[in-house]
Amino acid sequence: MEKQDSRDIAYMRMALDLAKKGEGQTSPNPMVGAIIVKDGIILGKGWHKKAGLPHAEPEAISDVRDYHKAELKGATIYVTLEPCCHTKKRTPPCTNAILKHGFSRVVVACLDPNPEVAGNGIKILESAGIECKVGVLEKEARELNEVFFKSMTKRLPYIHLKLAQTLDGKLSTITGDSKWITDENARKMVHAYRKKYDAVMVGRKTLNNDDPSLNIRFGLDESGKIPFRIVMGSISKMDPLSKIFNDEYTHKTIIITTGADYQGAADDVVKFFTDKKIRIVFAKSDENEVVIEDAFAQLKAIGVHSILVEGGGMLASSILKKKLADKMTIFVAPKILGDGIGYYDEKLDSMADALNFNNVAVKNIGSQAMFEIDPRS
Amino acid sequence: MEKQDSRDIAYMRMALDLAKKGEGQTSPNPMVGAIIVKDGIILGKGWHKKAGLPHAEPEAISDVRDYHKAELKGATIYVTLEPCCHTKKRTPPCTNAILKHGFSRVVVACLDPNPEVAGNGIKILESAGIECKVGVLEKEARELNEVFFKSMTKRLPYIHLKLAQTLDGKLSTITGDSKWITDENARKMVHAYRKKYDAVMVGRKTLNNDDPSLNIRFGLDESGKIPFRIVMGSISKMDPLSKIFNDEYTHKTIIITTGADYQGAADDVVKFFTDKKIRIVFAKSDENEVVIEDAFAQLKAIGVHSILVEGGGMLASSILKKKLADKMTIFVAPKILGDGIGYYDEKLDSMADALNFNNVAVKNIGSQAMFEIDPRS
Repeated sequence: MEKQDSRDIAYMRMALDLAKKGEGQTSPNPMVGAIIVKDGIILGKGWHKKAGLPHAEPEAISDVRDYHKAELKGATIYVTLEPCCHTKKRTPPCTNAILKHGFSRVVVACLDPNPEVAGNGIKILESAGIECKVGVLEKEARELNEVFFKSMTKRLPYIHLKLAQTLDGKLSTITGDSKWITDENARKMVHAYRKKYDAVMVGRKTLNNDDPSLNIRFGLDESGKIPFRIVMGSISKMDPLSKIFNDEYTHKTIIITTGADYQGAADDVVKFFTDKKIRIVFAKSDENEVVIEDAFAQLKAIGVHSILVEGGGMLASSILKKKLADKMTIFVAPKILGDGIGYYDEKLDSMADALNFNNVAVKNIGSQAMFEIDPRS
Repeated sequence: MEKQDSRDIAYMRMALDLAKKGEGQTSPNPMVGAIIVKDGIILGKGWHKKAGLPHAEPEAISDVRDYHKAELKGATIYVTLEPCCHTKKRTPPCTNAILKHGFSRVVVACLDPNPEVAGNGIKILESAGIECKVGVLEKEARELNEVFFKSMTKRLPYIHLKLAQTLDGKLSTITGDSKWITDENARKMVHAYRKKYDAVMVGRKTLNNDDPSLNIRFGLDESGKIPFRIVMGSISKMDPLSKIFNDEYTHKTIIITTGADYQGAADDVVKFFTDKKIRIVFAKSDENEVVIEDAFAQLKAIGVHSILVEGGGMLASSILKKKLADKMTIFVAPKILGDGIGYYDEKLDSMADALNFNNVAVKNIGSQAMFEIDPRS
């Protein structure tokens, strides 16, 4: 029994590694990997490559060589997520494929949080007499798809707040200069994050000060993925010469502002953005400021399920105050600046009232520290 | 030859470990360890225990058992610092003792930077026909005594600046609350630093806000060492109820201020400090502020060769601006405070003008980062 377990774990780990190959491509779907084994022989493997393309299970089944196809009868399939059983999507339910090929055992890492599945996939398989085992490497599988799990259970997108600061807590000089606080190794890690999420977001001042490309560089993405580039703030104050308003991907640029800001903008400003086919999303306002949680809800409504927020200080401060981050990564460089732009606009009298994070990992990136924080715990 | 070298290194490492036993007790002398070896047998070992007590070499010689004393002829002595040869001190020169006992070989880690020695010790030994080897674990030996090396070569004390800050770079709230930013593990490390140096220093606001004991707790010191407790600022504004003005160690409390501040103070303030036998040291002033480098020079003049500066923000800022720190240790806790007290009072327009440190080690203390910075490089 012991031995059986360790073998299940080993195959599930391989399936998880396969799942990761879909990183950044599967949204709004999860990353899923599958592996088919019989008598210790791996007959096939597959992963969900992209939303709209086949799920991991049919991918693994097609991977089996023709002269092995008969072997599927009585084989085990390892899947990192419960096989789907619903038909409200572009591909047929995976439970059908598993039943059709005569698998005798299905091992899954975790149940699908999608209310259309949520245990029903396993029920269908068990009713057909297939032995099912759920929960092998469940923690790892849930972590891999934490964006998807949030997407299925919460009304807001998954928010990863990333900041790069000096040792004394500044994101930029008072005049907005921030190039560069961190070294290339740290910046490369940020580009790897950009690959993971549907969108990258900055505030209006960061847009004007940095004119960021918000693309994936350092050769980290062969697929040519362009994440949504989101900027929040008053459209009249945005620099029209910004790269993300003038490159060939303006259909991937989204502006979040309030209806009043849009209505108050000059005709030529509105015409500029309309001509560029840049989407403008309206969120509720409170004293002329965008209500950040409504901004996120509106983004989710148009299909943005995960966002890497890269500052600046005002946007970070709103997220911290409303506790909207699902994950935070803060790079701290060994530089001391003095006056500059911080990222938490609060005036507290007691140290005990400071935001205090419990789930924190500190890593060393050269002479920089990287704080990885789970602010939800 | 190769083998000989590795044996020399091994014995020197033991001598260095012995030297460390004197930590915090030997100032203004260096920590020194010595070990006597003949035919692979360790005959004796010793270290300099305290200023005024014997040096490491005579300690090692007295450690040799009587029935082994004859063996000293032809033996090797390993010493972490060049043996002294001058008589301007409380103990006789160690070169004499080495000559007297007939050692045939002397291995030292590094030359003594004291201009009264500085190679003369080795010269005397070599002239007497003793084989001398210099430079075994020299780097380690110099690091061990970096305070002493600075003390011998520079006119200012060795300054170790230690700060504990929130992730967003604050030492305290605007109202001065700083208890506690870091956890007990980090605070314990600070107490270990206090043991190393002649003095612990804070600014006047930190004194009033924190009322620190500035002693060595956590059971880290059995010797009962009380470092000098130094506070800098206007005596009239110092809280007379502060612990360091009222405990049994007021003879170890030093105030640094300007002559004008002292003369402007009310009679009862002056009387209070005089009655408590608290030393008041005057430094030059510039626009009513203490000139920090003169303050340090005055402290050195009264025998304070090393200082752990523990903040607050103003004192740290002066040290950073004048580049007076020899070492910096900055603890960063995963807390975000917002407005608060920073530690670098500069207004820079360009990130390139920020203080930028090259020699930095980042360590992980629980969920905190510790930046160990050598600001001189």
